[in-house]
Parts: sequence; structure tokens; C-alpha cells
Amino acid sequence: MATTTVNNGVNVQALLDAREALKGAPEATKFTWRASCKWQDGTYSKTNVQGFFGLGEEQKHKTETSFEADHPEIFASEDRGITPIEYVLVGLASCLTAGVAAVAQNRGVQLRSVQSTLEGKMDIRGILGMDSDVRNGYDDIKVTFKIDADAPKQEIEAIVAQSQKRSAVYDVITNPVNVTVEVA
Amino acid sequence: MATTTVNNGVNVQALLDAREALKGAPEATKFTWRASCKWQDGTYSKTNVQGFFGLGEEQKHKTETSFEADHPEIFASEDRGITPIEYVLVGLASCLTAGVAAVAQNRGVQLRSVQSTLEGKMDIRGILGMDSDVRNGYDDIKVTFKIDADAPKQEIEAIVAQSQKRSAVYDVITNPVNVTVEVA
Repeated sequence: MATTTVNNGVNVQALLDAREALKGAPEATKFTWRASCKWQDGTYSKTNVQGFFGLGEEQKHKTETSFEADHPEIFASEDRGITPIEYVLVGLASCLTAGVAAVAQNRGVQLRSVQSTLEGKMDIRGILGMDSDVRNGYDDIKVTFKIDADAPKQEIEAIVAQSQKRSAVYDVITNPVNVTVEVA
Repeated sequence: MATTTVNNGVNVQALLDAREALKGAPEATKFTWRASCKWQDGTYSKTNVQGFFGLGEEQKHKTETSFEADHPEIFASEDRGITPIEYVLVGLASCLTAGVAAVAQNRGVQLRSVQSTLEGKMDIRGILGMDSDVRNGYDDIKVTFKIDADAPKQEIEAIVAQSQKRSAVYDVITNPVNVTVEVA
């Protein structure tokens, strides 16, 4: 198997083994990811992430991480963190990148560097309520990868395409997700 | 106007003024948000955010922020950051929370505290490629707000509903967005 000489730092064998093991354990594949947010002041908030549920039991990240979000000064705010809509780009970038590393490993392609730039276009007439025909969120997002790897461009493109096909965040952005918002 | 005695830290008047000013400047409302991601090792990446385009010119956040993402140890990875799909929850939480503060300010409702918990359910048979009928991303997301404010519950619920109606991230998650992925 070509993968023996390739090391992108992804333990593909463990993932393939997990896939086999999980075939007989339908409850174990049901995950719940969580976050808790506290309003600070104005448009500024802090969101913490640590615990989640999966493989049939409570899990947690090694450390609790806190993420600050705010609006920029040009929106009459204080820019104490990136905007909420930029967090969507962070999620998409990291999801596709992790996928590229995993797929390349599985296909025996050694990566040297993987960089991407993301651009999300949005008309703020939506969120400002200026025109109800303008959506609030992104009209479209463009992701451009620059990848240095031991493979021809066509093979690299196929790796990126497969990463897209299995990306959780790409799915959430390109397809509708049901969201319920309640006041306790 | 009731808002004169209320201070949630949101300069609603500036936003209303901006909305008026932008009516005559269709190009100024077109924003481009950006992120750039660098693969580190395995499923670990760092995504940086600082510059964006809006109001007809290049803008930037006061500081550049870097966000680490990884997969947890139960996925045979090293948990050097939260997962990409959790970043989506961070974006949703902070977007709805900023909206609650802005709408409450506009409606003259003083907020004392706004907290929310988010739960996103996902079946990992999707991303593991075990069953093509299982989607990769969230099946559904539940957001629960706990709000302490000078208003009856019905009014608080209406504020949350209006925040949802104008939320960029809520829109991106609940409706399809066109995403193009290319290799340079």
C-alpha cells in the first residue's frame, strides 16, 4: 500500500478501523456538538466550547476554548473580535483542509503545504433591513486552494473534490439545516 | 423615545443613520469577508482573519486573529483545537446574540444578561462514508436562550425572533449558499 511511505499526520487506518467497528453500533455514531454563549456588551459576546456527546457517552476537548465575536468599527461597534459571519469561513476552511490531509493520506499522496483563501460575498442591505429581496447571509463563497504535494494537479483536484464531498461544514453551508431557537 | 434610558451598548442610531446614507450608495453595501487557512499537520490547521472589503474600500479588524481547528482524540487525532463544525455553532451563537442586543436596544428594552446554549446533532456515518443517505453536517441545531431583561417573556421572544430574521449566520445555515472550491 502506497500510504506506508506517506505521512500527512492523519491516522487513516484508525479511521477505517473505526468505520468497521461502528457498523455494529448505530447509537455510537450519533454526535451532539455544543457551545455556550454569553453576551458581554453591545454586539460583543464570548462563546465557549468544550463538551460534546459521541460514541454513546459524554466527551470533552482537552481544554475549554473561548471565542470572542463583535462587529467592526465601521458598524459603530468596537471590533473586540471577528464578526459571527467570519466564523463560518473559519469552519469551512478548517473542515476542507482537514479533509484534504485525510484524503491525501488515504490515497498515498504526500502533502508539503496546503493553503487556502476564502472570500464570502454579502450585501449588507439584508441585515440592515433595507431590502427584503436581499438575503442576510452570503450570496456566495469562493475557496481557493494552493497545494504543494507529490502528485499531478489532476490528482490534487480530485483530493480536494473528495474532501468537499465529505465535509460537514460544506454540507451545512450549501444545504439547509433545521435550526430551532427558543427562549427558556 | 424609550431607548434614551436604555443602554445595551449598541449604537442603534448610528445604524439607522447608516441605513439612510447607504440608500444612495448601492456599491457600499457589498461586502467581502475573508479568511486564510494554513494546514499544520494531520487534521490540524490555523485560519487567520483580519482584512475585509466594505463601504467601497479595503477594511481591517484592529488585530489579526488566528483560529486553531483539529479533530478530537476519539477520531485518532490530537485535539489541538475545536472541530470545524463547532465553529459553525460559535458563529450562530454570536450572530443571534448580537442581534438580540441590537433589537432590544431599538425597542427600548434593557438587557441584564443574555446566555444561550447550542446543540448541533450529527450522525458521523455521513463524514465516515458509511451510509450515503446520512448527511455530512448537522441534522438539526437547537438554540436555547436565557434572557434577563426589563420586559415580559412575550416581548423577549419577539426580540429573539427578530434577531433570527436578520441574522446572517442563521440564514447561511438554514438556506443554501453557493460555494465554489478551486485549486489554483
